[in-house]
Amino acid sequence: MWGSLLLPLWPRRAFDREAGGGFTLESNGASMENVFEARRERLRRAMRQKGIDALLVSGAANRYYLSGFELHDVQFNESSGRLIVTTGGRDILLTDPRYEEAALALWPAEGLRICRGDSAGETARALGELGSRIGVESAGVAWAFIRSLSKAGPALSLEAADGLVEGLRAIKDEAEIAALRRSFALNHRMLEWLEGELAPGRTEREISWAIERFFRENGADELAFPSIVAVDRNAAMPHAVPGDAAIPENGLVLVDVGCRVDGYCSDQTRTFEIGCCPAPAFARTFALVEDAQRTAIRGMRPGMPFCEAYGLAMKVFEDAGEAGAFTHGLGHGVGLETHERPSLSTRGTGVLQPGMVVTVEPGLYYPAWGGVRREHTVLVTEDGVEVL
Amino acid sequence: MWGSLLLPLWPRRAFDREAGGGFTLESNGASMENVFEARRERLRRAMRQKGIDALLVSGAANRYYLSGFELHDVQFNESSGRLIVTTGGRDILLTDPRYEEAALALWPAEGLRICRGDSAGETARALGELGSRIGVESAGVAWAFIRSLSKAGPALSLEAADGLVEGLRAIKDEAEIAALRRSFALNHRMLEWLEGELAPGRTEREISWAIERFFRENGADELAFPSIVAVDRNAAMPHAVPGDAAIPENGLVLVDVGCRVDGYCSDQTRTFEIGCCPAPAFARTFALVEDAQRTAIRGMRPGMPFCEAYGLAMKVFEDAGEAGAFTHGLGHGVGLETHERPSLSTRGTGVLQPGMVVTVEPGLYYPAWGGVRREHTVLVTEDGVEVL
Repeated sequence: MWGSLLLPLWPRRAFDREAGGGFTLESNGASMENVFEARRERLRRAMRQKGIDALLVSGAANRYYLSGFELHDVQFNESSGRLIVTTGGRDILLTDPRYEEAALALWPAEGLRICRGDSAGETARALGELGSRIGVESAGVAWAFIRSLSKAGPALSLEAADGLVEGLRAIKDEAEIAALRRSFALNHRMLEWLEGELAPGRTEREISWAIERFFRENGADELAFPSIVAVDRNAAMPHAVPGDAAIPENGLVLVDVGCRVDGYCSDQTRTFEIGCCPAPAFARTFALVEDAQRTAIRGMRPGMPFCEAYGLAMKVFEDAGEAGAFTHGLGHGVGLETHERPSLSTRGTGVLQPGMVVTVEPGLYYPAWGGVRREHTVLVTEDGVEVL
Repeated sequence: MWGSLLLPLWPRRAFDREAGGGFTLESNGASMENVFEARRERLRRAMRQKGIDALLVSGAANRYYLSGFELHDVQFNESSGRLIVTTGGRDILLTDPRYEEAALALWPAEGLRICRGDSAGETARALGELGSRIGVESAGVAWAFIRSLSKAGPALSLEAADGLVEGLRAIKDEAEIAALRRSFALNHRMLEWLEGELAPGRTEREISWAIERFFRENGADELAFPSIVAVDRNAAMPHAVPGDAAIPENGLVLVDVGCRVDGYCSDQTRTFEIGCCPAPAFARTFALVEDAQRTAIRGMRPGMPFCEAYGLAMKVFEDAGEAGAFTHGLGHGVGLETHERPSLSTRGTGVLQPGMVVTVEPGLYYPAWGGVRREHTVLVTEDGVEVL
């Protein structure tokens, strides 16, 4: 693959991109341009409140959310491009020659800067033109890039301004909810199909690959995250990697999987009982987890603090004397990333709002025999939640 | 999927990890421990030369190279763990409860720190104990984390110290070369099989998925990078994403693909002629690219400056009057990452050394009809190079 090796020789011209632009929402160009522009308008309001006049957007999902340009970076240490949004309305997309055609397909040429070699220098120049108080997504940018920026533009006033775009992304718009529905519909189809696949003797790894094939051959762009397929005691592990363990005649399989459809992630977990009696405590544990999830889903509504949503499930476990086996939060936002805002845990601050899409995934874990987790994802509505 | 939601409740105990540890070199634990320790010893020497006594290793591939712990991070903004290597020999692995079992399987418990919540605070404390002049991989760490570190440990003296591990990684050791051979062997098998698959009418996307299936069903952990399958004019695009374009009766298909086997990437490109006459200039272009690649591979040897290796191929194109259509470098290192050191281009500084593994991938691109790229990867030996 050729990548960071480009010399500044690529001829600058546009031609039809038959190959398509990777992940795109299913909509025509004109209306999607409006969607991205509307999102940038909302961002401008948040920037004014924060008191900055330019924001350097570096996080890949944030960049895509605001422009439609490239959901992924090439490698951790290799950005596909950066976006500068200004309160004045003049926005600039900076990328390198590899992405010039892709950028021109969705961004006006006059707002595009192609960096040939010195991307920090180009970015510093653009920031110098566009802003005086400049915000930077400090969690989405390498320290090295900030150092290079400061060197290239010593007069620039850079400050950390995290979470502005993530805050917008926490409330999904119509196009996003539609894409999420498609992603979860495929996830449900896969889970129905999966029950017939869980034959004793098949390994975690085999099942994991079968799931990925099903997703990919039925419309998914990719997996949303590496699948978890965990047999028996492996289901108690916080970080189970599918391996050579085989499905037993009597046992359990925990499956935590997600696909990406039209850019949007789905995320669901089920724990399957194989045979008649996986473990003495299985049936009771399963019923408890189901009860905790049902209780949370029935109780969740707009205005409820995140920690209270968590408390709905925790209360069920506490009453049963099993609180110590519920070792994680209740859920997290899902969208362009599998893990995004908000966090439904004791540490989460804020309240549920209509348009939020969050997982509800209580679980109980016992290293001696395994665990049960059950995860659905819900859309917060005007008066409660709807399971996706 | 549950991720960043963990509360500090996970019981601290080790049990067998039936599921295996993800990517591991095929070797037994004891000897691999020696391999990782030997690599850290080499790093200590580089650190002493640089004048630092502790290095905070944040890059995922660097961390894996030195410890065997987790080749990937969860998301860009979610590290799986960090490693502190000291010249004194006391090394610390910091991670969170999700990875505790995986870490204990390959790292001594006394050198392990499980961060429950405040990972910057834990890291600052460990750095304070271990070093006075502390190096940080500035390209592998978010600015936000550096800010949190400085806040948690205001007395810490942090300085950017990039490239130390990357420098070691550029020279492959025996275990790495063996893994690379396995990865390239599978890549060659796939390319042989692929010729029979390139039937007119099949789309770039279909071929791309068929390639991924072949890799995955024949031993690959995953793709090394998103495959490029580009028909006709798409082959001239620096960033071709497989789309709905179909293989024509007469045309060309450029395929640039890699798989990961036992952690190590392969990377090869071929341009296939479909039918009798893809484009008037195709045969001449193909012959030129082949000649440039052959000339480079025959001429490359230890001690040769990187820019000179690039020049071997460029000279062939210059003599043919086609220099302007060769728009990128000649090659890059391949290993745990698809793009790593060195860079064989006009900008690369340094010389070829035995043990380096680099791509040799000249190409000529013509937006009017397409392009030809041909990429093999070579191991630099004592007196030349060997094609992998």
